[in-house]
Amino acid sequence: MAESVERLRQRVEELEQELSRERSRQVVGGRTRIEKMSSEVVDSNPYSRLMALKRMGIVGDYEKIRTYAVAIVGVGGVGSVTAEMLTRCGIGKLLLFDYDKVELANMNRLFFQPHQAGLSKVEAAEHTLRNINPDVAFEVHNYNITTVEHFEHFMSRISNGGLEDGKPVDLVLSCVDNFEARMAINTACNELGQTWMESGVSENAVSGHIQLMIPGESACFACAPPLVVAANIDEKTLKREGVCAASLPTTMGVVAGILVQNVLKFLLNFGTVSFYLGYNAMQDFFPTMSMKPNPQCDDRNCRKQQEEYKKKAAALPTQEAVPKEEEEIVHEDNEWGIELVSEVSEEELKNSSGPIPTLPEGITVAYTVPKKQEGSVSEVTVEDSGESLEDLMAKMKNM
Amino acid sequence: MAESVERLRQRVEELEQELSRERSRQVVGGRTRIEKMSSEVVDSNPYSRLMALKRMGIVGDYEKIRTYAVAIVGVGGVGSVTAEMLTRCGIGKLLLFDYDKVELANMNRLFFQPHQAGLSKVEAAEHTLRNINPDVAFEVHNYNITTVEHFEHFMSRISNGGLEDGKPVDLVLSCVDNFEARMAINTACNELGQTWMESGVSENAVSGHIQLMIPGESACFACAPPLVVAANIDEKTLKREGVCAASLPTTMGVVAGILVQNVLKFLLNFGTVSFYLGYNAMQDFFPTMSMKPNPQCDDRNCRKQQEEYKKKAAALPTQEAVPKEEEEIVHEDNEWGIELVSEVSEEELKNSSGPIPTLPEGITVAYTVPKKQEGSVSEVTVEDSGESLEDLMAKMKNM
Repeated sequence: MAESVERLRQRVEELEQELSRERSRQVVGGRTRIEKMSSEVVDSNPYSRLMALKRMGIVGDYEKIRTYAVAIVGVGGVGSVTAEMLTRCGIGKLLLFDYDKVELANMNRLFFQPHQAGLSKVEAAEHTLRNINPDVAFEVHNYNITTVEHFEHFMSRISNGGLEDGKPVDLVLSCVDNFEARMAINTACNELGQTWMESGVSENAVSGHIQLMIPGESACFACAPPLVVAANIDEKTLKREGVCAASLPTTMGVVAGILVQNVLKFLLNFGTVSFYLGYNAMQDFFPTMSMKPNPQCDDRNCRKQQEEYKKKAAALPTQEAVPKEEEEIVHEDNEWGIELVSEVSEEELKNSSGPIPTLPEGITVAYTVPKKQEGSVSEVTVEDSGESLEDLMAKMKNM
Repeated sequence: MAESVERLRQRVEELEQELSRERSRQVVGGRTRIEKMSSEVVDSNPYSRLMALKRMGIVGDYEKIRTYAVAIVGVGGVGSVTAEMLTRCGIGKLLLFDYDKVELANMNRLFFQPHQAGLSKVEAAEHTLRNINPDVAFEVHNYNITTVEHFEHFMSRISNGGLEDGKPVDLVLSCVDNFEARMAINTACNELGQTWMESGVSENAVSGHIQLMIPGESACFACAPPLVVAANIDEKTLKREGVCAASLPTTMGVVAGILVQNVLKFLLNFGTVSFYLGYNAMQDFFPTMSMKPNPQCDDRNCRKQQEEYKKKAAALPTQEAVPKEEEEIVHEDNEWGIELVSEVSEEELKNSSGPIPTLPEGITVAYTVPKKQEGSVSEVTVEDSGESLEDLMAKMKNM
């Protein structure tokens, strides 16, 4: 009996030691919360390098970032990195929307790790992001915003999910990979007058873009066919046929980087906010442009926002709210009166006129090198198949 | 006595359960190793989206990536993301060099997490990266390459640390934040005839660049003052005076993204590899150019490589090894015969001519908007203080 007690005591001791070892191996849960951003230059201050932006004269009031709430729809290759960047920058609140699960097939993009396979993307992301920065407030929704029920909930969270509950969010970011979800975000933002930014990466992984949409002021997603947005094929068809879109952590990282940079410039009021910035990885070509809204847009809320914007602009004739007219208009003869402004030089054209990669049927490159015109001004073409804007719009409406 | 045994048994059971719970909470060590990259389109295949690049006609032989070894010097804001991207792309081997520790002050950049504070950057990185992709081979060195002893070891690992031991690495990437380390890498690569790429982010966090250096073919780091590399101040001075450089996850993410994209294009032979690509975040301006080597370069190994390159080029007159002469030469009257090639349009110039941010004394923006010349071709200036190339070189030699 005495021996048995001794053995049991030994076992208890062994187990206690083992448990202690296991516990010390655990990831210690990040850092404690910080009440106020400090600019103190010490190794223990996670905000010192951001607050230095003030001292360097780049940002007037960096702390203001803590007052903003941003909604991110789609937490995939672009959305997850977007969320991580905003988290590390110390954004006030993030609202994440996605209905996908993490898969090993996502491991060729940044952010998610193999041990998270099987978890919902929003939950896995929230866990990682809270650990990185416990000062950020998170609200996650594991659903598809395009279903009727969820769309209404999505709308109500955009209107009421701000840092102070009941106030709208400050910005919506679209990081989705399909036309339907983009159109849902567009519809919601037109109705709410909510400013948003769209992002996209092509199916061949070597081009992408970001676009800022201010309802009434700039073209909405229904005003014109999406430029530089992937191939115009339904991703459901893709999956059914066993066709798999390519993706690269590089292209997605660059797109997330230019997206969040545009967000920071927009929210913290520094630099030039881009209405449209494209990225062609094959030629290192970065076209910029801006598009006016289409007065005949199918979305009645877009037309309504345009009227309101015009009234506001007329009431403030000396304000900056007046659309900038000094930009050279390149193309104004399409049925929607969309103006494409291009800043592409002859040199750039020459340099980007590489061969178009051969793609399987049904897949087209998101955008191609602009067609040459007189001088250094050129027309930005939507894609390379020779289809008109009208054809494309019709095609997408049928999707 | 019987009671005591019962209590001990209960305690053993409790501890066993607790241990089991703790163990199940542990991060399950990622995924198992994969012998051969498959292009099968299933959720469990971490390479399906990369192998799709072949089917999409972008890359001829994606699997070749497993045959390459890349050395990364500096595992900070740019280097860590660079390492993660290459790891997720399935590179054969990574060699990491850094001597810093992770600090909470690094949390405004991607990759490292708060629980890693205090660990050496290379060890923390290796742990995370192995977990993400166990198919990659890692070799890490926790030392400063600029000391004599470590420089020699660094040289020997560049020459012998390839995928097959005894063979050189395929590419060296400089992701360091100071002039001394860049110069050390430059010296090593000129001596070994090793192709490398340099990257940099300015001290004000809103500009950056990447540059490809092929010894003998393109300008080395000693041929001309580094363009767009941070402010020309010693980081030791910075630290001593309590001045703290700003940094942003966005700018560093974009620079890492364009760096690794250039690496993939270079190693896998697709698209146009850029010799120089800059990023001005304030105006979304991305200048490109190329620079020829300086026949009077201070580095004798650079001059030797130039001679060898000329001989090779002369022996192969119809080969592509001949320097491309079709580029318009903008500026050829400096003492080193450096040619700056610019592809900047008038429109771009106009759009990027925003005000230069006010910076504290001693800090200058890494590069400024090119000066306007006739037509759409313009001179790329090194910086905005009105200093000449000569002044700058002299200044940096004194650092």
